[in-house]
Parts: sequence; structure tokens; C-alpha cells
Amino acid sequence: MMNTPLTITSMIERAEKYFSKKKVISRTQGGIHELTYKDIGKRVRALSSALEELGVEQGDRVGTLAWNHHRHLEAYFAIPSMGAVLHTINIRLPAEHLIHIINHAEDKVLLVDPDLLPLIEKIADQIPAVKAFIVMGEDFYVPESSLDPLYAYEHLVAEGDKTYEYTAQIDENDPAGMCYTSATTGKPKGVVYSHRGIALHSMSLGLADTAALSESDVSMPVVPMFHANAWGVPFSATWFGATQVLPGPYAAPKILAELIETYKVTTSAGVPTIWLGLLKEIETNNYDLSSIRAILCGGSAAPEGLIRAFELKHGIPFIHAYGMTETTPLVTLARLKSYQSDLPEDDRLSIRKKQGLVVPGLDIKAINDSGEIKHDGEDMGELLIRGPWIADEYYRDPDKSVETFRDGWLHTGDVVTIDEEGNVEIVDRTKDLIKSGGEWISSVELENALMGHEGIFEAAVVSMPDPKWQERPVACVVLHEGVELSKEEILAYLEAKFVKWWVPDDVIFMEEIPKTSVGKFLKRTLRDQVREMV
Amino acid sequence: MMNTPLTITSMIERAEKYFSKKKVISRTQGGIHELTYKDIGKRVRALSSALEELGVEQGDRVGTLAWNHHRHLEAYFAIPSMGAVLHTINIRLPAEHLIHIINHAEDKVLLVDPDLLPLIEKIADQIPAVKAFIVMGEDFYVPESSLDPLYAYEHLVAEGDKTYEYTAQIDENDPAGMCYTSATTGKPKGVVYSHRGIALHSMSLGLADTAALSESDVSMPVVPMFHANAWGVPFSATWFGATQVLPGPYAAPKILAELIETYKVTTSAGVPTIWLGLLKEIETNNYDLSSIRAILCGGSAAPEGLIRAFELKHGIPFIHAYGMTETTPLVTLARLKSYQSDLPEDDRLSIRKKQGLVVPGLDIKAINDSGEIKHDGEDMGELLIRGPWIADEYYRDPDKSVETFRDGWLHTGDVVTIDEEGNVEIVDRTKDLIKSGGEWISSVELENALMGHEGIFEAAVVSMPDPKWQERPVACVVLHEGVELSKEEILAYLEAKFVKWWVPDDVIFMEEIPKTSVGKFLKRTLRDQVREMV
Repeated sequence: MMNTPLTITSMIERAEKYFSKKKVISRTQGGIHELTYKDIGKRVRALSSALEELGVEQGDRVGTLAWNHHRHLEAYFAIPSMGAVLHTINIRLPAEHLIHIINHAEDKVLLVDPDLLPLIEKIADQIPAVKAFIVMGEDFYVPESSLDPLYAYEHLVAEGDKTYEYTAQIDENDPAGMCYTSATTGKPKGVVYSHRGIALHSMSLGLADTAALSESDVSMPVVPMFHANAWGVPFSATWFGATQVLPGPYAAPKILAELIETYKVTTSAGVPTIWLGLLKEIETNNYDLSSIRAILCGGSAAPEGLIRAFELKHGIPFIHAYGMTETTPLVTLARLKSYQSDLPEDDRLSIRKKQGLVVPGLDIKAINDSGEIKHDGEDMGELLIRGPWIADEYYRDPDKSVETFRDGWLHTGDVVTIDEEGNVEIVDRTKDLIKSGGEWISSVELENALMGHEGIFEAAVVSMPDPKWQERPVACVVLHEGVELSKEEILAYLEAKFVKWWVPDDVIFMEEIPKTSVGKFLKRTLRDQVREMV
Repeated sequence: MMNTPLTITSMIERAEKYFSKKKVISRTQGGIHELTYKDIGKRVRALSSALEELGVEQGDRVGTLAWNHHRHLEAYFAIPSMGAVLHTINIRLPAEHLIHIINHAEDKVLLVDPDLLPLIEKIADQIPAVKAFIVMGEDFYVPESSLDPLYAYEHLVAEGDKTYEYTAQIDENDPAGMCYTSATTGKPKGVVYSHRGIALHSMSLGLADTAALSESDVSMPVVPMFHANAWGVPFSATWFGATQVLPGPYAAPKILAELIETYKVTTSAGVPTIWLGLLKEIETNNYDLSSIRAILCGGSAAPEGLIRAFELKHGIPFIHAYGMTETTPLVTLARLKSYQSDLPEDDRLSIRKKQGLVVPGLDIKAINDSGEIKHDGEDMGELLIRGPWIADEYYRDPDKSVETFRDGWLHTGDVVTIDEEGNVEIVDRTKDLIKSGGEWISSVELENALMGHEGIFEAAVVSMPDPKWQERPVACVVLHEGVELSKEEILAYLEAKFVKWWVPDDVIFMEEIPKTSVGKFLKRTLRDQVREMV
């Protein structure tokens, strides 16, 4: 058969050619923009030509620090289509991490949103490899800035060649993108995505059995485009000609609800924190969200109460998924099998709250000290993943690579069970498991139970050293506004659900659980706080 | 990223592991069989081990002469998963072609349905490369036959190793399958399918925007498994865990209608002749076909009247698709874009009757003497196709390869228009175009118009040599039973639809249009017949 490579270039060219009338709606600090794929296609070509003029060559890294908007989308295609590498940078990283990853990736050019310029101005003298900065604002002129040379995105695009031909000879295994993991410990680790990996992943998002992204969708990724390519949604949505709504900077729940209502969004993707926020908003104010056919939720486990509220109270289908930066990211997705659709509501929810079935194209297994675990929903082991959109190393980091990529598998550090239907459920991180009296206690299962209580907004469970049992669990709880609950009531609630030795020794009430920049609980910080408090 | 190969092995392993309860329903001469993917998985392993025992090695070709049933499905996976090549042989070929392709492919083992044994017995002494024959019947014992050595499929499977591990080191570009085109002229040409090509094609069939094959489907391929892998449907359906209904030998319209009703088939695939037959059946007798969510129709152009009858009269969504043996085969598929769904019925049908939009992953263009054609629905050119599931040569046939595979594109020999939305419409074969007075007349457009007449069952238009105009069209028409129509009435009907010089010079009434073994009009034979008659 022909050895036609799988590339990102072919995705944008398809959108340009066959979906020229379809629209990308983009919210920026300048307001709402509506562009067709015909417009976008020309602007992508112009950006590629401008980057080439600036000296970007095949294989060079080009960094972005930007929210979810059309200019970022254009960069998603312009950079890989000319053979360079799209390096999306997490805007919430501390300065020392920004310096580290920009230097480690050797970014040659940085594209930066206007409101994020100060982040880079502060560190500009410590990132010597960067040869040019581009500000992704509305204006043709650059703002006052210490960055030099600094170009205005719209000026480059206006002057660029809108008929630029993508002539780069791209092998499908060439790097197309990269993203550093938001490490909770140590320095961020770089993951490089190939054209092949992104193309196959994008195809998997279009499968009827996964996210079923299609031309008829109005797709609104809330997950940041600087975090695992917004789960690959912008690539798929463009390839398949879906309408896209990019919610821009500081997209508060009210803004999201309004965008959904106005543009009849059919599908969205984000972490549980986003949906907890949206839930509060739609329970306070009235919106017509009937256009939504599916919400994708991943990044960390969604509490059952959240799924229940969306599905049963608001009639919004809520699909739980699992992946990580190292996996492009989609690995599993929770859907009922056809013969499960008639199960009682609670049984269906208990399946839907798991992370789900591995998508076609990937292999998984879970191992513990006794070998591969049984598929019985009880046996616990570390999840291992293999497949063509799974990283096989951390970029220029052999030490960290050796820990994670072994024997042909990615070792996730996630402890899971797998039920007889093949559904994966994360029960903990290997390092967050609580080892009490020689047995394992899953902090995540306790957290999910706590967050299933209607008075509790958020909860995290961490280990405390214990002279007798080695470790014992302690619960940290954030109550909903106006709710009063005592420590004893919470413990009694858990005693009804778990064996006695799983029930935490203490409950600590907090204002907020500390989180990483992508909304995951920062267990290490929390553990330190708690150990000081108790 | 990991260089995990895309293989057929991973498809059957996924079905075994995650869809062990789902069923394959198979109609054979022995009756109806129901097997789970758990059963199928074990039987596939046993068949692989048996073939290995018979001396089949990686890269060897193993031929099948069989209808659509579970044993053929097992061969679809057992042969490629052990690294050998599944060579599906068209059972309707004349003996000389059978001899040619079995020798040309150098098949080492042949799997043959009981009723098809005589085809092979007749030629057994002319296919010296074949070392063993397997009869795919119900029995543990072999029937009386001159074939030697002859094994019983069920005996091999029963004795085989049901825990056989697929240890073959398969590169994704290794051959997995092959199929010879049913040539209307000259010898059949071999097309080799790689693991990669079949895997990517299978994924494309699962996209929400294409066939949307999914776990919840009950999939019944009517297109023969000896013809372009039954359009790849059995591979996708297995990978995604769909229920499959395999309709077996001599599946008359009545049998198809009963299978659809009994097993609540949701999707089926076949050539127009099949659906013309089913239409007659469901208009004569009562069936509940409400389970069907989509019928896929390809192989040759479906007349508008057929689409109209299924869609409007029977409420059965009818999806027109296009492909060929050389393209695995799916290339284009006709669906409305989201903004076309409110168009008036006739406008929607005029889109649905085209061959449609190229699927994600492939590139197309059409060229004529002036270069690439305009996307205006008028300009005509030869369709060219490129992509990872498109063949790049005919097997061991450099002369034929050079004609068809040039400049990195497959030259289809199909003359098409492409409209501004990107929808392809076949207007003719390059060799069936009628050249009249220096202009082109599309025989296919005339045929479609004729078949849109409610009194006409089938029609073909061929060229006659003409001293003045070089060539002139003549229509061959088969009327529905009991209908009376005169030549003059038919010509008047066409005069209302076409410019004067397109209207055929004559109408010839026939009992049947001669067809190839896969149901396509045999234009060359027809031309010869007509030239003798006129």
C-alpha cells in the first residue's frame, strides 16, 4: 500500500478544502471572533510563511503561552505543518519551571498572549535560545514591552503568504508537538508527540464508540490548549470539520454557560473542577443547555455526585475518560455496552463513574507483585499502557525515562482495578496509597465516597504516619456554602460504606484543597499541611 | 512515541478480551450458528495453530473460497494473525481465472466451502503450489473428494491449540490480505493489503461521520467476504465488538429480510442489485425492518429511485459510498453536512445520490487534459486517490501497475465531477464515456435517469460507432414485470431531462443486463451484443 504519512498538515488541508464555510468562534480579550475554516486555512499558511521568514526550520521548537482561542488553533496547525514542533507551555507554571522548559526545549520563537507577556518579560534574560517573540493580540502594532524582537501576530499574518505551500517532507514519526507534564515533584518532564501519534489519536476521538466527534458537532474544549493539546480535541474537530467554540481567557462558569447556550455547543471537555463550577452556575441561574450531547470529563476522577447531577438532574450525558500527558491523552472512556443499557440506574452509574474501556488501538494491563491482575473489579495493580500514541521516553531525560518506560510499556503510577467487562477504575496513585497494617487503603475511594455526600464540595484523603499501623488515613473536607456537618457525622457516613479499618482517624475542615495548575489535588502539599496541623 | 504496529491481531484480541459475551450469528448450509467472541477467539487461535502444523509460515498465502459465515470470519483473523496472507478468492470466477490467481498468488493452503469443492476438484491438477485443502463444513469428517490431502475444518479446530499465542513478529507494512480484481478485460490483477492499511481503514469505518460502526451495532455484510474483504466490515465489526450476522450462501432477498427482522440488524452493506432485490421483497411481503439505522451501498452507482424508495417510502437511511478493490475499499461516502439538513427533500436526495465526500485519511483530486478540475459539479475529470489504505501496485504485475499507479496516485479510470462542497459524483468509466461530435456524453447519467423512471428496473447505455458523430448512445432497458413502455415514451422522458444530442438514438428492450460476478454491468459484453443486434 502507499506509504502516505499520517500528518497534521492533511487535517488542516481537509478543513480548508471541504469545510470552508464552517466556523471557529473564538473569545479573546478583544471580544468574540468568527472565522471560517477558509479564513483559518489562509491565516495558518500565512503564519507558517511568517515563521519561516523568522528563521524557523524543520525540527525547531516553537513555544506557545496562550489561552484557548483561534490564534492558538492556527499555531496548532501552522507550526507542525511547516515541520516545526508545537511546544505548548503551561501558563500556570512558576517562573523557574518556565525557564527550565523553554531552555530544555530550546524554543526558537515564543508566541505569547498579551496578558501573559509579563510572565516572559520577567525571565527573558534567562532564555537565550529564543530568537523572537510574537504577541498574539488583536493589534497590528506591538505593545510596550522589554521583549526584543517582538512582533505582532496579526501583522505577521497580514504580511504573510496566504498561499504558502507546506513543502516540508514530513515523516509520520517526526515530532509535531511537545508538552511538559505539570510535575507535582521535581522538574517538569517533556513529552514529544509525533505526527503519527496525533493523527491516530485524532481518529480515535471520532469513533462512534469514543467521543464520536463529527462534522455536526459544535465542540468547545475547556481543557486548556496548553495541557495535552486540549486532549487532542482541536485537532479532531478541525479534521472532521466541526464547528469550534474556543472559550478564551479566564472562562468563568457563567461565560461557559453563556457560550453553550449562544452557540448551541454539542460537546465539551474539561476536568471535574470545571464541571463542578458549571453545575453551581446552572443551579443558580437559568440556561438552555439542551444542545449538549456529551460532556467529556477527565484529568482526575469525577465524583459520582457530579456525574449523577449532570446525568439525572440536568439530563446532560456525562462521559468519564482517562489519560495523561504521556498518552496524547485518551486511553479509556466510560460508556455502557449495548447489553448494559437496561440495567437499573444505580448499576449504570456505577459503570459510568469508572474510567472505562481502553479505546481501539491501545493495549493495557495492570500488574502487582503477583503479576497481571484478575479482571474482577477487586484485584489492584499498576496500570500499564502500550500503543502508537503513547510516549516511549521523556525528552532528553534518560533517568526519568527509565523509571516510567520499561519493557515496552508506560508505567502510569496509577493503581487500578479492572472489572470483568474490561472497565478500568483508578483507585489511587501508587504513591498516594495508604499502607495500613500491611494492607492497602485507596485514598481515592474514600474521596469519591466523601464527595458523594450532598453536603461536601471537595474532599481529599492523605496518609499520616502511625506508630502502630505504619500509616493511617485523614480526611480533608470542604463543605458546600451554608452546610453544617460535624466530624462525627462524616465518620458515621463513611462507617456505613467501608470496613472499619478504612475509616479515617480524623476529619479536617478546610476552605479549599490545594491543587496543581491543571486542577488536580496537590497531595504532597496537603500532606505537609495536615502533618503540621494534626 | 512507541512504534507499536497497527495489526489485525490486536483487533481479534480486543474482541476476545472485552466483548467476550457479544455474538456472531452465522448462517451456513448446516443452519444457524451462534458463537460468542470468546468462542470465536479460541477457534481463531486453534485455526492458526492448525495452519502452522500444516506448514504455513509467515508470509505464505492461504486462499479461501467461501461465503459469508463464521468460519470465513475466523480465517480473516487466524491467517493474518500468524503472519500469513489471507487470499480471498472470488467464487464466481471462471476456472481459467481461478487457476491463474491461485498459481499467481502461490496459495499454499486452500479453505473451501463444501458446496464449492467441485470448483477446485476440477482444477486441482493445475494448482501445484497448493499443499493442503480444508473443507469448511459442519462435519469432523471429510466428504468424498478427489482433493488430497483434504482436512475437515471442524476437526482441525477441535484438535488445534485454543491457547495458541500469536508470536509472529509483524511489521505493520507486512501483507495481511490479498484480493484479485474481478477484471472485465484481461487477467485479474492482485491487490495486497497491509496490516496497517486494513487497521486504518477499519478505524475509518468507525468514525461518526462515515459508517459509524460501533459496539451497539448488529452488522450484516451482504457484500461477499471474497470481494474487497466485504468492504472491511468484518474487521471493524470485530474490533469494535459489534454483533455480526453473516448471511451465508445463496442469501436471497427473503432470507436477508428475515435475518434483519429476527436479529434486529442495524446496519448492512452491499451493491445496488442486493437492495433492488430486497426492495422488491419488502414491497411484496411484510417485515419489521425498523432496527436498521443505515444501509451502505456501493460497488456501482445506486439509482436515485432506489435511494428514494428506501429513504422516503420505507424510512430506511440509505448511504451511498464509493471504493474499489485497490482502495480497501472505502474512499468516499455521501452524508449531508449539518447545514444541509434543512434543504428541501429533492436537494437532499441530489446530494445523497452522489458518491460523497472523501473520508479522513485519504486525498483525492480529479484531472483532465486541462489539469485539476474545478469543484463546480460540472467539470469532468478522472478521479485520482492517495492514502495509507490505497494500493501502490498490482501484485507481481509491473505492466498493469505502471498504467494505474503513477506520480504517487491511483488512477481510478472513473470519470467524476466534484461539487463545491467536495462531493464526488461518478459520471462514467473513462472507457465507457461516449464521445459524440467531439463532446463527452456520460453513459452513467443517462442510466441513472432511466432507472429513475418508475417503470424501468435496470438500464445500461453503451456507445455505437457512428460515421458522422464518431459514437452515439444506445439504451438497453429492462422493464419491471407487467409494465408496458414504448421506445418513444422512453425517449420522450429523456428528452425532457437532457440536451438533444445526449438522447440515445435507440432503445433496446432486454430480459436482463449482463453483469460481472459482483453485480456490475458488463459493458463490454453488452456492447458486443448490441452491435450484433442493431
